[in-house]
Amino acid sequence: MADLKFEREMTGLLLIDPYNDFISEGGKLWDRIKSVAEANDCIPHMLEVLSTARKAGLRVFYAMHRRYRPGDYETWKYVAPVQRAAWSRKTFEFGTWGGEFRAEFVPQPGDILAQEHWCSSGFANTDLDLQLKRHGIRQLIVAGLIAHTCVESTVRFAAELGYDVTVVKDATADYSEQFMHAALVTNLPNYASGIVTAAEVADALLVS
Amino acid sequence: MADLKFEREMTGLLLIDPYNDFISEGGKLWDRIKSVAEANDCIPHMLEVLSTARKAGLRVFYAMHRRYRPGDYETWKYVAPVQRAAWSRKTFEFGTWGGEFRAEFVPQPGDILAQEHWCSSGFANTDLDLQLKRHGIRQLIVAGLIAHTCVESTVRFAAELGYDVTVVKDATADYSEQFMHAALVTNLPNYASGIVTAAEVADALLVS
Amino acid sequence: MADLKFEREMTGLLLIDPYNDFISEGGKLWDRIKSVAEANDCIPHMLEVLSTARKAGLRVFYAMHRRYRPGDYETWKYVAPVQRAAWSRKTFEFGTWGGEFRAEFVPQPGDILAQEHWCSSGFANTDLDLQLKRHGIRQLIVAGLIAHTCVESTVRFAAELGYDVTVVKDATADYSEQFMHAALVTNLPNYASGIVTAAEVADALLVS
Amino acid sequence: MADLKFEREMTGLLLIDPYNDFISEGGKLWDRIKSVAEANDCIPHMLEVLSTARKAGLRVFYAMHRRYRPGDYETWKYVAPVQRAAWSRKTFEFGTWGGEFRAEFVPQPGDILAQEHWCSSGFANTDLDLQLKRHGIRQLIVAGLIAHTCVESTVRFAAELGYDVTVVKDATADYSEQFMHAALVTNLPNYASGIVTAAEVADALLVS
Repeated sequence: MADLKFEREMTGLLLIDPYNDFISEGGKLWDRIKSVAEANDCIPHMLEVLSTARKAGLRVFYAMHRRYRPGDYETWKYVAPVQRAAWSRKTFEFGTWGGEFRAEFVPQPGDILAQEHWCSSGFANTDLDLQLKRHGIRQLIVAGLIAHTCVESTVRFAAELGYDVTVVKDATADYSEQFMHAALVTNLPNYASGIVTAAEVADALLVS
Repeated sequence: MADLKFEREMTGLLLIDPYNDFISEGGKLWDRIKSVAEANDCIPHMLEVLSTARKAGLRVFYAMHRRYRPGDYETWKYVAPVQRAAWSRKTFEFGTWGGEFRAEFVPQPGDILAQEHWCSSGFANTDLDLQLKRHGIRQLIVAGLIAHTCVESTVRFAAELGYDVTVVKDATADYSEQFMHAALVTNLPNYASGIVTAAEVADALLVS
Repeated sequence: MADLKFEREMTGLLLIDPYNDFISEGGKLWDRIKSVAEANDCIPHMLEVLSTARKAGLRVFYAMHRRYRPGDYETWKYVAPVQRAAWSRKTFEFGTWGGEFRAEFVPQPGDILAQEHWCSSGFANTDLDLQLKRHGIRQLIVAGLIAHTCVESTVRFAAELGYDVTVVKDATADYSEQFMHAALVTNLPNYASGIVTAAEVADALLVS
Repeated sequence: MADLKFEREMTGLLLIDPYNDFISEGGKLWDRIKSVAEANDCIPHMLEVLSTARKAGLRVFYAMHRRYRPGDYETWKYVAPVQRAAWSRKTFEFGTWGGEFRAEFVPQPGDILAQEHWCSSGFANTDLDLQLKRHGIRQLIVAGLIAHTCVESTVRFAAELGYDVTVVKDATADYSEQFMHAALVTNLPNYASGIVTAAEVADALLVS
């Protein structure tokens, strides 16, 4: 990864789903993620990447999952299994702590919050592509949760839409190391130009 | 229009932008719309279409424009003129009366509110296409504001996306009769299978 | 238009539907377009814009309509009126002269030909947005046929998708001056930052 | 899977990339796929699913990868790794045997061939969603190549777009059993309502 380079004016950080339900003690899915997230220091690395991006003057974008609201799925003819799970668990329930940003990741003025996504891709049925274009972004640094669903789908969509993508592998987590492997080793190298560490991102953005 | 037919289970009513700023006395754009809207009884006809749809058991969808929030456009590299106008006027300002639904058009339980659109098409950068598909909708009856911008763009997008569209010509309005003519006579007959009256919609949906 | 400025590296020329059926003597629709096209010297201006773009080093993109092939619409549940017309006329029939580029507009090496569009927008259901992104294009100069359908829909979509658009008003044509007015005066000023002449494009691109 | 049910009029078979380069002896990628494909009788099962669909009167859709042409990627600012691989190998080269359908999978009259996709999803930058909508399709049965790239991306996109998806697990293949597992066991159960065998599809469609 000696060649990790970003055109700063055209590069944005994309943070996916930093909700309490995912990454805070007491969150609905934290117990399933905790083991992997602690093994790779996922949260400190997400903070490092965020801090790096702010220092380097990159714009920060958030792709956040639909916060569950009553009535969301009852009238749908078909519901994808991943949505059925969110429905039954009321994941990221609107108006509850679980559906709030973990405190350190609350958006700051100037950050861009895309519309909530219904399934896994931050691009599908949202204004994320528009916001990236309107801000002149072509390269994305991606961090957040969880690796084999929302992160992977967002990266697959980003590549299809024409973006250059770098995934921060120690700033994501998953339910198991096997799932991490499926996302980070098997699949994402097809769609992301780089699968790197938070430290490598900092080196590329802050040292030059 | 003797052949106006809808498959009820696959037909939805799409109401576009029934905000106070557009269609209530005192709204920011009402004075510009009032003349045309009163000439064709736009608001009573919008209510008639809504009432018809509810009686016929059609699902109702809302395509609502982005409510203006500070910071919306300041950081964009490019802003389309229609967005520049919304920015300078603070049209549909979030948290104000102008950015609320006119009272008779407040969504009811079971209605579907698509994500807010940034420009003119209710489909662009929103979940409207997803919500229509998830509810099995293929045919759209379209009413609302204003004819040559949001209505026309939404209908153009609907046709491109594969929907069959009927526009209710006396349940829309515009800044001038010339603009109405551009939308309803010059352009929309290319994209909508029917350009009809609210009474014709009622006949087709309630009489059989 | 004293402020007409393009960032050359991020600007592309988009030519819409320069088919024989539209703009060559003997083409299926030429007789309907001829009067307006000759009044504003549409074809010489399209050539001027193309020549200007090549001299200025802009990349050239083509958004071409589906060439009619037997079976295209027979199995569709719904067909938009503008598609029904193309079907009955066999407009731009595949394998015929009418479905070929007018000779002066045949793509050159390095030009990008987007997939054919089924309705009016060069962006809908095609790879045009992808190709523009992959080539780093954010600003579009648009010329071609016809003003109130394909040109207008393509510009509406471009604005929704986040592009900055300039329309060349004397390098397009239509079935009547009224239709030209609907597109160029009533509607497109909402979505295009500039509605200019071929000479103004040349001034902006070649004089600096 | 006792509950595998399809509404026939709304169900389509989607075949992904049945090119000689993937699944014919002598194809550029066949040697890498062969081991998995022979272990699960992928090709006979693809044929079984196709035959079942035709007998049951389902419409057949094809999502085919861009056939390589010189100049495809040279001018792109960014090229995704999976595209870089296709570029260097000239996979599915236009005008060569490798870029043709394997003989048994050549489309028949009435079948629908979507525009070629540039990356992995059959939906991205193509008319596949439009063609499905125009034919009234809401449920997809998916078979073809290869599991962790094109099949998985197409299924992820289909779920995001609102389709109900069933994947035929013995009518797909991959470079290794580990890649098959990543797609069929780790990821796709989130997005597909069913991961079934060709025999189960036949039971559901032909026995009733």
